[in-house]
Amino acid sequence: MGLITSPRNARVANALALRTRAGRRDSLRFLVEGPGPVREALRARVVVELFRDPSATGEVAEAAAAAEAASVPVRDVTPPVLAKLAATVSPRGPVAVCDRVDVPIDRLEPGRGVVVVLVEIRDPGNLGAVIRSADAAGAAGVVVSDASVDVYNEKVVRASAGSLFHVPIVRRGRIADIATSLRDRGCALYAAAADGESNVFEARAARPVALFLGNEAHGLAPEVRASMDGSLRVPMRGGAESLNLAAAAAVMLFALARRGGKV
Amino acid sequence: MGLITSPRNARVANALALRTRAGRRDSLRFLVEGPGPVREALRARVVVELFRDPSATGEVAEAAAAAEAASVPVRDVTPPVLAKLAATVSPRGPVAVCDRVDVPIDRLEPGRGVVVVLVEIRDPGNLGAVIRSADAAGAAGVVVSDASVDVYNEKVVRASAGSLFHVPIVRRGRIADIATSLRDRGCALYAAAADGESNVFEARAARPVALFLGNEAHGLAPEVRASMDGSLRVPMRGGAESLNLAAAAAVMLFALARRGGKV
Repeated sequence: MGLITSPRNARVANALALRTRAGRRDSLRFLVEGPGPVREALRARVVVELFRDPSATGEVAEAAAAAEAASVPVRDVTPPVLAKLAATVSPRGPVAVCDRVDVPIDRLEPGRGVVVVLVEIRDPGNLGAVIRSADAAGAAGVVVSDASVDVYNEKVVRASAGSLFHVPIVRRGRIADIATSLRDRGCALYAAAADGESNVFEARAARPVALFLGNEAHGLAPEVRASMDGSLRVPMRGGAESLNLAAAAAVMLFALARRGGKV
Repeated sequence: MGLITSPRNARVANALALRTRAGRRDSLRFLVEGPGPVREALRARVVVELFRDPSATGEVAEAAAAAEAASVPVRDVTPPVLAKLAATVSPRGPVAVCDRVDVPIDRLEPGRGVVVVLVEIRDPGNLGAVIRSADAAGAAGVVVSDASVDVYNEKVVRASAGSLFHVPIVRRGRIADIATSLRDRGCALYAAAADGESNVFEARAARPVALFLGNEAHGLAPEVRASMDGSLRVPMRGGAESLNLAAAAAVMLFALARRGGKV
């Protein structure tokens, strides 16, 4: 196939639609950009099509070769077409069209580690960073509630640095349903809160933890928190009233991971 | 004094210059926005002038009243003038002109906690989040090297959520000079690295720690790392190769804080 020079090319136009939430919802696909994340997507066997600048060398060319070796169609595009497909300012590519990776909540295995539940999280950088930390801490999964930023938003994908393909992700769902499902599967439900009852470094119990983190500005709703088995805090020493959501999640996930994901 | 209606008003123009790095460098002042951060700035006694929309109520009015009580000049401006001064999209104000808060490196007290050293950090959100985590973990200070984002950048100030006024900040300086100064003051110098020699949760020693974190993309230069006393890692379990810089800093700072800031 020849070089695609127009953003109005049908394949390019279909991929461009994935830059919007509506386009991702309709096609059940999303975009992944850059050699590292594309490599992780190829390992996860979810890449359906790859766009690259054929004059690119190094890591970009290696990612395209890996796609070809996996029988993924590789489309050659001009740098201006690549720039349209990419979300970054100075894109090197490649850009991959991927099938969604999220799983139903009953596929999670809470015994393997903490389940992180994000409620109405709004900042894509925060969501991506929490997915990355959850992966690194060996979490059993990340559940993202309704009214949160889209897991497949390009900034979330970028901030997750490939971890979107490593840790099981459950998307959408009402908080009450998520809570019931996780409780049925043996989890103890804990709210992360600046004024939590138990120091996350010292809390002790025997069940796998589901850790609920609320919205960046106003945290978890009081009724959600009241329905939990307890609440955990990061012990604060200085003058700060709270931590950034992604920082709090990272500290708690690694503290809990040291006890096998249980409190 | 009456209501200021023009952004060309001399006081407003002087404050507007603080939206640029050059303007902050020339005047040794910076801007702080929003009731919470302004309250912290007032507590730190660094506010020299406050701009507010006199029709604003609630927290904004309370912050302005606190400024007046502290004999800080309060300037009434129209909403369009406030919007010019503010960095946020829907500003409520108030906006405070503040004197810088950074201190010389010899003012740090390493025995009180970890000293964080940030080398060529580029993302303002990361720098602000690290300052906030350092405050919350009771760190002895944050040192920001040359070639890093400006500590007084509006995004750094916002992301620090007031912690810029709680934890001692040292800005600028060559890495070699920073290292020498901290070593002279009894610190053991450790590099934070994904492949660090020692697990940060298990490392043991008797001296206060200075924890060096490198640039988001390429970490610490090999020669900087080679000059340290050792390196620390966050133990990784999943498929992630590394953590987001702010997440890694938070996990390490709280792990070290549990041992009094020593390894």
